Parts: sequence; structure tokens; C-alpha cells
Amino acid sequence: MNYSVIRYILFRVLEFAALFMILPLLVGIIYKESSAFCFLYVMIGCLAVSLIGRRFKPKNQVFYAKEGFVTVSLSWIILSLVGALPFYLSGEFPTYTDALFETISGLTTTGATILTDVEGLSRCIQFWRCFTHWIGGMGVLVLILAVLPLSGSYNMHLMRAESPGPSVGKLVPKIKNTAMILYGIYLAITLIEIVSLMIAGLSLYEASTLSFSTTGTGGFGLLNSSIGSYSTAVQTIFIIFMMLCGINFQVFYLLLVKKAKEALGSEELRYYLGIILAASVLIAFNVRGSFANGFQAFHHSLFQVVSIMTTTGFATLDYNVWPEFSKAILFILTLLGACAGSTGGGFKVSRLIVLLRSVKNEIFSVVHPRSIKKIHMDGHIVEEGVIKSIQVYTMIYALIFLGSFVLVSLNEFDFVTNITAVATTFNNVGPGLNMVGPAGNYSAFSGLSKYILMFDMLAGRLELIPMLVLFSPSTIFRR
Amino acid sequence: MNYSVIRYILFRVLEFAALFMILPLLVGIIYKESSAFCFLYVMIGCLAVSLIGRRFKPKNQVFYAKEGFVTVSLSWIILSLVGALPFYLSGEFPTYTDALFETISGLTTTGATILTDVEGLSRCIQFWRCFTHWIGGMGVLVLILAVLPLSGSYNMHLMRAESPGPSVGKLVPKIKNTAMILYGIYLAITLIEIVSLMIAGLSLYEASTLSFSTTGTGGFGLLNSSIGSYSTAVQTIFIIFMMLCGINFQVFYLLLVKKAKEALGSEELRYYLGIILAASVLIAFNVRGSFANGFQAFHHSLFQVVSIMTTTGFATLDYNVWPEFSKAILFILTLLGACAGSTGGGFKVSRLIVLLRSVKNEIFSVVHPRSIKKIHMDGHIVEEGVIKSIQVYTMIYALIFLGSFVLVSLNEFDFVTNITAVATTFNNVGPGLNMVGPAGNYSAFSGLSKYILMFDMLAGRLELIPMLVLFSPSTIFRR
Repeated sequence: MNYSVIRYILFRVLEFAALFMILPLLVGIIYKESSAFCFLYVMIGCLAVSLIGRRFKPKNQVFYAKEGFVTVSLSWIILSLVGALPFYLSGEFPTYTDALFETISGLTTTGATILTDVEGLSRCIQFWRCFTHWIGGMGVLVLILAVLPLSGSYNMHLMRAESPGPSVGKLVPKIKNTAMILYGIYLAITLIEIVSLMIAGLSLYEASTLSFSTTGTGGFGLLNSSIGSYSTAVQTIFIIFMMLCGINFQVFYLLLVKKAKEALGSEELRYYLGIILAASVLIAFNVRGSFANGFQAFHHSLFQVVSIMTTTGFATLDYNVWPEFSKAILFILTLLGACAGSTGGGFKVSRLIVLLRSVKNEIFSVVHPRSIKKIHMDGHIVEEGVIKSIQVYTMIYALIFLGSFVLVSLNEFDFVTNITAVATTFNNVGPGLNMVGPAGNYSAFSGLSKYILMFDMLAGRLELIPMLVLFSPSTIFRR
Repeated sequence: MNYSVIRYILFRVLEFAALFMILPLLVGIIYKESSAFCFLYVMIGCLAVSLIGRRFKPKNQVFYAKEGFVTVSLSWIILSLVGALPFYLSGEFPTYTDALFETISGLTTTGATILTDVEGLSRCIQFWRCFTHWIGGMGVLVLILAVLPLSGSYNMHLMRAESPGPSVGKLVPKIKNTAMILYGIYLAITLIEIVSLMIAGLSLYEASTLSFSTTGTGGFGLLNSSIGSYSTAVQTIFIIFMMLCGINFQVFYLLLVKKAKEALGSEELRYYLGIILAASVLIAFNVRGSFANGFQAFHHSLFQVVSIMTTTGFATLDYNVWPEFSKAILFILTLLGACAGSTGGGFKVSRLIVLLRSVKNEIFSVVHPRSIKKIHMDGHIVEEGVIKSIQVYTMIYALIFLGSFVLVSLNEFDFVTNITAVATTFNNVGPGLNMVGPAGNYSAFSGLSKYILMFDMLAGRLELIPMLVLFSPSTIFRR
């Protein structure tokens, strides 16, 4: 393995970490909060260490898939470790483990919190919490690719290791330009949401923090009641932007270059919107008794469905008290997640489509053993390699899921708390059911459980393989 | 499709149904029970219909995979419909749906009951309940293959469609002889268990009914407390025979033909025993506080682990009150199941082994993209086709599982009841947790839920594909 390149990139990640903290530092200064100093200290520390790192130049350009996976995993771990420092140093979090849990939950856009009282935090800390969603939403290495003068084989391997979805779509021939376009779209959506929310009456502070949480599909809010106390208009803005950020960003790019037909013809997009509509209607019908009218029922079920399917995790009410049928649908949506190439997490709609088609094919081939049928998506043939990797992905997904469930059960909380805690962190959603429901939090879990859930969040966000490669014996023992 | 052959075999199934009812009829006569007449009526009905069917001879021998799947599915459905008649006619079951649920639960060796009081049944009905386990354990078509003079391509396709496990191992070149050997071993194990239980003090009636339930890995018992009130010696006999019947019967055949080294070298066998041991030790340690001594703790945890892993479903106590960690392990074992080619159900240990290896391979190939590694099992290369079908099997398994869970949630029972009810019927185990725990039953479920669970039991027993082929549009619309 080419350690010199990995080391080089990791030192650059530290520089970016320092860069990211400028905004919360400014917020702290504006509101004259003492916690602002924490950001300053960490920034100085990061810059100092990265200055030392400047002396190590990469010896050669050799960079393969393995280097890509290891670099991405380590970058996220380092960013998490550093990002947790302001939380810890501010004294507003009980332990470093809790601060780390919150940071990983933020960067992976999960939104699961160990805090019992979000409103008691200082503003710069709240800002940093929400901003980690924005950083993690599009991916920190994609940002580095967009702005750093890296060239050669790095780009594709890093992009592939960090991007969500079964295959990486290059928008334009150059990865660097693809990354810049993606970040441009991301920034534009965020700015439009901030303006929309301010028009709806929110302050710049509220609008920007909550926009970071929405566009990153994270779910950290400013109030203990999540989004419940905002007006219906504001809630509707959230629904729209959550939905937008659960869509493959390629669709927006195609719209920008005036390929509307191609953009709207995306099968994943249609399935995504169809599932949202179907689930919302079913749940609205199921919970109609608890609301004054049909519109209210549909509004709240749509909000919850979009929030969970896009893996954001905002809530307008405590759906833990909803009927079991509605909760079962929300649980399935937790496992499913949003579109590939979006800022959302989860299993991804496109994987589900390919799986359903491969199952259909298998049954067909059993009945007609001599015929061979190819799987198509968006009019193209899905390659055998992609199908295979999706199938193996599903296996790993199931194995990590069940393994984590057994280990988290050691806490002796109830079955539903344990299984939904794993499902919701692994798919980067945030809230589950019972103790970890929208009105609950993760503070009561043991240290072991918290570290397992942290692993699940990182493995879920990076889509399993990078974390497994990092922790595989052949990497650890440098073979 | 060759309907004439399918019709021919289905009429023969009716004859076998009549044959199977001789034993419960005898039991009813011996104990002078009025319910015995129900068996007589159904026998006469079956024979009358099959006599009419004698007139239809198969027009040709064309018999492919599709015919095999459809025949097996329909045979099981017909046997279930007919087998439920004595239950219904006896008046000891509330509705025909409930009688059908009980019969499918019996034939698929699930052991889930809708009865609140098992002890109130007449003896011949109790006998029939347990005997359905024995019939379904090895498979009714395997029996037909063993005794009927069928020849040609039927055999392999029927055997493949009914036998559990990823691939069918022919013990000897002729399928007919393989089927006879399997049934011979099955009968021998059953007889040895009956004798063992009688030596331990049980009556012939108790020993034979409970032996049918054990060797079929079913789980229907004679007492409301399942196996809890029997002595430790009797419970230990059950542990041994449950464990034996969860092993691939090929192992016993190899032992019989003095290939001990090959038999005991089976990787699936070693994983199976290893998992049982590991799970029992973990649970015994977890529940040690509830027992007088370590032996008691280990005895009961071993019993529960073996009972669930072999998908039998006997219980010596209500493990619903055990700690969450133990219940989580039992839940995972419910999903896993026994060895391929045994009478046990579930996902099967051999599928897990292949999956684990394919996952390991995938991670390896990501790190070393140019190398190609084959998956081995028992020293042989596992063919690509088998690996692919196992992966697709897993997908279908997950999809049916989650779909059933959502539909069963319409009952508005709690999450754990719903998810374990689906898991335990789909894997032919029997008891789940909470309402469907070892002390509970399925009587409260709605008709819709019962039919979904019946489908799951049949799909689980026949390993998904046959039921899906039967219900696929191309079969229904005769394309």
C-alpha cells in the first residue's frame, strides 16, 4: 500500500477540518459565547499538525482501490475524532465518547443524538452540530477533490469509495469537474432553502442551521420537539427540500444542461416518488383517526415518510404512538433509504430495483432454463459485476445488521429499541422506535453499544466496503 | 406445461393422504373416540376421488423444472386442504381456517398452533397433529418417489423442488433408491427415539407422537407446557434426537456405508455443532442467575438453542422472560435454521457458509482486483450457479420476510409479536416472542394474517421458489 499518499491526504483533511470550523467560530464570536474558543484551539491544533505534515510529500502516484477505501475510512475517522473536540472541550457533552458519537452521527448525516436537552446548548455548538451534516452530506473527499490540485488515479478511487450508490456516475469526463458541479448544486439548494425559510419567518441562524440539516439529510434540529413547533408552511418547505436532497444529484445536473427528458425518465426517481406517495397514503389512511382532517393526516404522514425515506430523521410529532402498521412501514423505509448519488443514506432505491429484477429473472430462468434475460435500468443493461456486487452488498448489510443487533441487545433494553437503534444508525436515519423514538435519545446506551452504533453509522454512510477493508486482517497486518 | 402428469401425481397424493390417516383412525378406534369417524369419512372421500382420477393417464412424459415446482406446491396445498378436514369435522377446531393453519403448520413442521388448550383434544386428533410433522419432515413427494414406479425425468425435478438446501445430493445414482434410503434412515431414527422414550418411562402413545414431532423437527406437543413437565432424562433424549434430525441425512448415509471420515468432515456439520455450542454457552452464561446451578442453566439453554436452531420449537420453559441478549441470539437462530438435507427448516447453515465466503471473496477482490478466488466447501469448488442462486434466495427471503411483516402488522399487535411471528413461521420453527412466545399461540390473529403466515410456512418449507413459480403470472395465465 502507498502509505505516503494516504498520509498526505490525511494531513490535508486536517486543514479542511480547520477550515470548516471558521463558521461556528464566527457564530460563537457574534453571540459572544465562551465555547467559541474551543473551535479556535482545535483550529490552531489542526493547522499546526498539518504544517508538520507538509514536509511529507507523496513518494509516488500509485493509488488503487485499496488505497481509496483506506484513505476514505481514515479521513472520516480523523474528521470525526477532530470534530468531536469542540463538543468535548466546551463541556456541553458528558464524555468524549458522547461527543464522538454526536460528531459521527452528524458527519454520517444520521442525526441520532445522545443529548437529552438540545435547547440547552450554546449557539456555536448547535451550529457545528448541524454543519457537520452539511459537510458529511456530499462527502468531505468529494470537496477535497473539487478544490485540490490532485490528479491521476486518486480521483476515481476516492470518489468511488465515498459516493453512495451501486455505481459512480461521472457527470463530466473529469472527476474534479464532476465534484465541483456536485458541490455547486449542493450549495445552491442550501442557499435556496435558507432564503425560503427566512421568507417563511425564520431567523438567519435558524434558517441556515436547519438548512444544513435538511440538505445533508441529517436530522439534528434546534428544539427538543424537532420540527413539531414550526408552522405548516415551514414544515412544507422542509418536506420539499428533504425530498430534493434524496434525489440523485445527477438528475439536477441533467436538468441544468437541459436534458429534462433524460432527467425525469430516471427509473430510480420514479420508484422513489412512487414509494413516498404510496407509503404516505397508506399511513395517512391508517392514522386518520388521530387528526382533525384528511389534509392534516396526509401532511404529517408525508412529512414522516419523506423524513425517514431520505434518512433525514426530522419529526413533526412522536410517531412512536402511531399504529403498528404505520410503524412497520416506517421501519421498512428506514431500511430502504433514498436514491443513489443523493445526500441520503440507507440501502438505496436503485439497489432495490436491481434486486427485484434479479429475483424476477431468477424465477423466470427456473421456469425457462434455456433463456437468458439481461437486467435493464434506464434503458441500459446492468452489468453482471454490478448485480453481483449489489447482491454481496445485501449479504454484508444483513450480516452487520444482525450482528450489531445481538451485541446491542447486551444493554437489556427492549427488542424494538435494539433493532430500530441498529436499523436507524446503520441507515443514517436517526430516530427509531421506543427508547430511541423521535422523542427519545441514545444517552442511556453503554459505551460498547455506542461504539458499535458509531461503526454502523460510518459503515452505513461509506457503504460497508471501505470500513471492512480498513478493518480486514490483510490491511491491519500490512499484507 | 404438462397438465396430465401433474393431475396424475395429484390424484396419487390423495391416495397417500388416505393411507396416512390409517394410523390416527386406529388410535381413535383403540381409544373409542368419536372423532375417529372423521378420519374414516375423509379416507373414503380421498379414495373415491382418486379412483375417478385413475381414469386420467398421463399423456406423455414431458416433465421439466416448472412442472416439478408446480406439482410440489400443489401437492402440499392439496395435502393441507385434505389434512385439515378431520380437524374441522371433529369440531375440535373453531373454524376451517384454523384447522388449515394447524395442518399447514404440522406438514411444514412449523409447530405454530392456534389452539389455546392442546390437552383438551381427543387422542386421535392429537396423534394426527403430530403425525403431520412426520409426513412433512422428509417430504411427501420423496415418499411417493420411493414407493411409486415413476421413472424418467420426474424424479430429479420433484426431488429438487421439495428437498431443503441449496443443492440436492443424490446418495446413489438412482433417485428412487436415494428416496428409499432417506426414508429408511428417517424411520430408523424415529423407532430408536420411540424405544428410548419408552425406556425413559413414557407410554407408547406419548413416545410415538412426540417422536414424530421430534424427528420431523415440528414441535407440536401433547401438553400446554410443551416439554417442561418431563424429566431431565426425557428432555435430554429430545435434545439428542432434535440435534440428529437437524443434520444432513447424507451424513448418516455416509456413516452407514462406513465413510466415517467423509461424514464427520462435513463443514456444515461442524459449523452446525459449533453454533449450537457457542449459542448455548453464551445464553447459559446470560441466564445463569435464574437457575439453581450451572448444569441446569446449560441444560435449558442447550434445549432451547437446539430446539430453535433445528426449527423444532419445543420448549422446557417460557424463554420469553429471558434477558434480551439471549432472546436476540434465539431470534438469529430462528432465522438461520438447521443443515440442508435435514428435516429442519430455516435459511440453512450451508447457505450461511457460502454467503460468508462469498462476502470474504468480494472484499478480497476489492483489495486485489486482478485475482480470482473460488469458493470451496468440503474440498470442492462451489459452482457460480449455486452461489448466485443462494444470493438470489437471500434476496427473496428478505423481501418476503419484510412484506409479510408489514401485512401482519395490520393486526395491531406489538412489533416483536409481528416480526417474530413472521420469522418463526417462515423458518418453520413455531414459537416466537411475546404473544406468540412458547406460552402463547396464534389464535388471536386475523384471517388475513393467518393466510399470510400459512403462505410463509409453505414458502419456507418448500424454499421459496416452488410457491413463487406457482403464483407467478406466467403460471397462472398458462403462458
